[in-house]
Amino acid sequence: MQTEEKSRQEIQGDKKVIAKKMRPFLENNSAIRMMFEEGKKMAELYGADKVYDFSLGNPNVPAPQKVGQAIQEILDEEDPLFVHGYMSNAGYPQVREAIAENLNQRFGTNFTWQNLIMTVGAGCGLNVALKTVLDPGDEVLTFAPYFLEYRAYVTNYDGVLVAVEPDTETFQVNLEAFRAKINEKTKAVIINNPNNPTGVVYSEETIQSLAAILNEKQEAFGHEIYLISDEPYRELVFDGGTVPFVTKYYDNTMVVYSYSKSLSLPGERIGYLLIPDELSGSAEMIEAATIANRISGCVNAPSLIQLAVGRCADCQADLDFYDRNRRTLYEGLTAMGFDCIRPQGAFYLWMKVPAAKKEPGGSAGKAEADIAGEGEDLTAAEAAFVQAAKSHHILAVPGSSFACTGYVRLAYCVSYETIVNALPEFEKLAGEYGLSL
Amino acid sequence: MQTEEKSRQEIQGDKKVIAKKMRPFLENNSAIRMMFEEGKKMAELYGADKVYDFSLGNPNVPAPQKVGQAIQEILDEEDPLFVHGYMSNAGYPQVREAIAENLNQRFGTNFTWQNLIMTVGAGCGLNVALKTVLDPGDEVLTFAPYFLEYRAYVTNYDGVLVAVEPDTETFQVNLEAFRAKINEKTKAVIINNPNNPTGVVYSEETIQSLAAILNEKQEAFGHEIYLISDEPYRELVFDGGTVPFVTKYYDNTMVVYSYSKSLSLPGERIGYLLIPDELSGSAEMIEAATIANRISGCVNAPSLIQLAVGRCADCQADLDFYDRNRRTLYEGLTAMGFDCIRPQGAFYLWMKVPAAKKEPGGSAGKAEADIAGEGEDLTAAEAAFVQAAKSHHILAVPGSSFACTGYVRLAYCVSYETIVNALPEFEKLAGEYGLSL
Repeated sequence: MQTEEKSRQEIQGDKKVIAKKMRPFLENNSAIRMMFEEGKKMAELYGADKVYDFSLGNPNVPAPQKVGQAIQEILDEEDPLFVHGYMSNAGYPQVREAIAENLNQRFGTNFTWQNLIMTVGAGCGLNVALKTVLDPGDEVLTFAPYFLEYRAYVTNYDGVLVAVEPDTETFQVNLEAFRAKINEKTKAVIINNPNNPTGVVYSEETIQSLAAILNEKQEAFGHEIYLISDEPYRELVFDGGTVPFVTKYYDNTMVVYSYSKSLSLPGERIGYLLIPDELSGSAEMIEAATIANRISGCVNAPSLIQLAVGRCADCQADLDFYDRNRRTLYEGLTAMGFDCIRPQGAFYLWMKVPAAKKEPGGSAGKAEADIAGEGEDLTAAEAAFVQAAKSHHILAVPGSSFACTGYVRLAYCVSYETIVNALPEFEKLAGEYGLSL
Repeated sequence: MQTEEKSRQEIQGDKKVIAKKMRPFLENNSAIRMMFEEGKKMAELYGADKVYDFSLGNPNVPAPQKVGQAIQEILDEEDPLFVHGYMSNAGYPQVREAIAENLNQRFGTNFTWQNLIMTVGAGCGLNVALKTVLDPGDEVLTFAPYFLEYRAYVTNYDGVLVAVEPDTETFQVNLEAFRAKINEKTKAVIINNPNNPTGVVYSEETIQSLAAILNEKQEAFGHEIYLISDEPYRELVFDGGTVPFVTKYYDNTMVVYSYSKSLSLPGERIGYLLIPDELSGSAEMIEAATIANRISGCVNAPSLIQLAVGRCADCQADLDFYDRNRRTLYEGLTAMGFDCIRPQGAFYLWMKVPAAKKEPGGSAGKAEADIAGEGEDLTAAEAAFVQAAKSHHILAVPGSSFACTGYVRLAYCVSYETIVNALPEFEKLAGEYGLSL
C-alpha cells in the first residue's frame, strides 16, 4: 500500500500531465488572461461605465435585423430535421451558392458553390487551410504586427511561422523584408486585410507587388506558395475605400472569411474557406480541405446559423456606427499629440507609445518598434504606457501581443459613449507624457 | 516565357499539392463517398421509399419541441449582442452550471460548471482531449469494432491508434486482449458506450474490470493513462438498462458528450468535454483543454445553440421511437435466421455476415471476424453480402468500416415505415443465403 501511495503521489506531484506542445500556451495564456481578469475587476471596483475597455474585438453593434428574421423564418418554415441535421461536410449547397453569387456580383468573379467550404468561423477556416497544405517544417510567412493566434494555428500542423518586420511608416506590406524572408521552405503566406491590429487596408499596388514576388518565387523554387487571405473585416472599410479581391491578383490564393464582424456573430462560429478553380490542383485541394474540416472534429459548420447567413449574403454591416467611433477617437487622440496610424478599415486604431514620460527621474525608456520573437516580451516603455493608461481606466492591448512592441491597439468596436467619456482620460495621459501638437 | 510555361506545367502536373498527412484520407474518402453517392443514385432511380438506407447515423426524430421553444425564447428575451457574442472559450458559465447540476442529480456526482468545456460537438470534444494529452508516438487504445474517425483524430496529434480485438460473443470489452495490448506507450484509452456500431452497452462489471486494469497499469508504468469515454448515445438505452457513469469508477476519466443524438441536433455541433476534479492535474488539464479548444480555431461552441441546450439540460430523447424500430428490426431479422447482436443502446444493429451464399458455384467465401489494419480492406464475403443487400435496395455499412470485417451495421434511426418495408427484402436476402431457424 505504501508503494501505491508513493507512486500515486509521484503521479499527482508531477503536474506536467499535458502534452509538451501545449505547455508554452499555458504560460502565455496566463499573461493574457490576467489582463482580462483585471478589466473585470476594474469594472466591479469603479463601475463598468468608468472603465474604458478597448482591449476586445467584440462588436458592440447588434446583428442586423435581417439575421434575426432569417433565423425566425427558418425555424417557422423548415423541417427541424433539415434545420438541425447533418449536411455535406462542406455545407449546404444552397448556402454556398448564395454566397458565391454575392461574391461574383460584387467582385466580378466566377465562383460556384463548389469553391466554398463553410467553416466554424475564420479560426477553423485558417486551420483547415493550413492542415491541408502544411508538412512539418514548412514555413508560413506573415506580416508583423499580426494576430498572434496565427502562430498557434501554424504550430498545430508543425509548421514554422516567420514574421516579416513591418514598414512602420505605412504599415503596408514591407516588400523588401518579405523578399528577404521568403525561401524554399515557404509553403504559405498569411495576410489579414483590412488589418488587425493596424486598421490599415492593403492597397491594390501592395497586392500586385506581393503577387509579383510570389509568382517569381514559385518559378524559382518550383513549387506552389499559397496566399491565405484572412478577411473577417472585408466589409469594414471607410472613406469609400475598397479591399482588393486577392484571387484576381494571384492564382494560388485561398480566402478565409467570417461573419463574426460584418454580421456581429462572433459567438456563432460561422465563416467559409474559398478555394478558386485557378488554384493549382484545386479539385484535390477542395476535397482535402473538406476532409480536413471533417477530421478536425468540426464535421461541418453549425447548421441553423449556416442557413441564416445563406439568406443574408447581401446584408450590410453597420459601417456608420464604426465610422463615427473611428473619427471621434482618431481625431481626438491626434489632437492631443498621440502618434496614430489613420485607420482605414476593421475597427482598430494603432497608436505609437509616446517616446518618454515626463516624470521626476522617469525611466520609462524609449519606444522603438521592436519585433518580439516571443509575443509577450513587453519592452519597459510599452509596459509602462499600458500601465499608465490603466491608471486612467483605459485598457489597451500592448503591441507585443501582436509581435510589434512600441505600440498599443485600441479596439473601437465599443459604444460611442465609451469613446466620448474616455477622451478626457486620454488627455490626462497625454499630459503626463508631455505631448502637444 | 517557355521556361515559365514549362515550370507552370510542372506545378499543375504534380497533383500532390496537399500535405502528406492528408493523402491517405483522400484515398479512403473516395471509397466511403462512393457508397453515399450510390445511395443517392438509387433513390433517384427507384424512388426514395423503395430504398432502405440503413447506412447513416442521422436521427429521424426531430429535436424535442422544448429545443425549438428555448431557441425562440432566447431570441425573444435576450440581447442579440449576448446571444451571438463571444463568451469564455469554455462556454457560458450558466450553461455549464445547468448541465453540471443535471449530471449531479442523475448520477450522484459533484461537478461544478468549471468541470465542463462546451465544444463543437463530440468530434471536437475528442480532438480537444487528445490534443491536450498526446505527445507524438503516444499510443491510444480503442476497442474494435470502433468509429473509424478515432484513427483520424489520434493521427491529428501524431498519436498511434491501436485497436483491441473484440470478444465476438458479447462485444463487451475484451479484457484479456486489452491487457495484452496496453503498454508503456499507452497514454489514453477511448471507449464508446453505448457502442457504435454494435449497439452494446458496457456493463458495470466491464467498467470495473477496465478500471482495475488501468489502475494496475498506471502503477506499473508510473504515469497517467486517461480513459476518454465518448458518450453521444448515453440516453439511448433500452429495456430499462443503465450506462455506468465512468468518472465514478476511474479517476483519470474524461467524458465527451454530444447533443447530436439525444436532442437530434447533429448539424448544430454542440457538446461538451467533462474533466472531473479527481483527474490527475485536473486544473492544469482544464486550462489546457480550454486553450486547445481556442487554438484549434473553434474558439468556442456556437453561442445560440449553446444557450438553448443549457435550457434543455433535462430534455428527454424520444426513446420509444427508437425502441419500436429496434424491436421490429431485431425480431424480424433473427426470425429470418440472421445472426444479430441484441441491441441494448444507441440506434445500431450489428449483424453477422451469413456464412455462405447458396449459389451455383457460389464463392462468396467465409465470414470470420477479422480485424482489418486498414478499415477499407473488405473481405470478399462481406463485400458480396453488402452487394447482395444492395441488390434488394438495402444499404448497410460493412464491418470493415469499423475495423471488424465479417459484419454489417444497420442504423435504425430511420422511419418505422423504412423498417417495415425493408423486412420483406431482408427475407429474400435470407432466402438467397439459405438461412432458416
